[in-house]
Amino acid sequence: MPFIALSTIEEKEIIKGYHAKLLHAKNMTAAFWRVEAGSELPEHEHKHEQVSIVISGKFEMILDGKKQILDKGMVALIPSNVKHGGKAITDCEIRDVFYPVREDYR
Amino acid sequence: MPFIALSTIEEKEIIKGYHAKLLHAKNMTAAFWRVEAGSELPEHEHKHEQVSIVISGKFEMILDGKKQILDKGMVALIPSNVKHGGKAITDCEIRDVFYPVREDYR
Repeated sequence: MPFIALSTIEEKEIIKGYHAKLLHAKNMTAAFWRVEAGSELPEHEHKHEQVSIVISGKFEMILDGKKQILDKGMVALIPSNVKHGGKAITDCEIRDVFYPVREDYR
Repeated sequence: MPFIALSTIEEKEIIKGYHAKLLHAKNMTAAFWRVEAGSELPEHEHKHEQVSIVISGKFEMILDGKKQILDKGMVALIPSNVKHGGKAITDCEIRDVFYPVREDYR
């Protein structure tokens, strides 16, 4: 399916408060997140490189020990195998693209 | 720079009517496009896999010979080396992520 309407994709709650619509291409996974205010993302790392874009809301990210409040129009470039985590200060919409595919999200 | 505000990135007009803010990670390039109504994207292909998301406006895409009007919330998954092109029916905002990096966009 080369063309997909996001409205037709069912959300999955990947961790508590983190709801994603997921699309897997051959090399990349796109995740469209709806995050509930207050939800914590424990610090973790993965082999996947990640481009993370905040669409709305405020998200406090910790990346490689550096803390930053991200809001609309902020992008985080998360390298492979670098520790990151955070917390939704408000309800947030966030979009991630990962390389390679997140097999664990299928 | 792991955290970037899109407002600080200068736009480049890559082809006539296609203005992009570009971010290059190690393996992926993210392009935030502002496309002027009526602008044509000649059919082309590249080794890069592409995830393309329409944020606003209407874009007529031709992908591998199939024509589709894409509007808000529509995603196109464009495989490596598959012909695609199109035309902005209205002013559009489109976001692409490419794997691997678009060296030609640096």
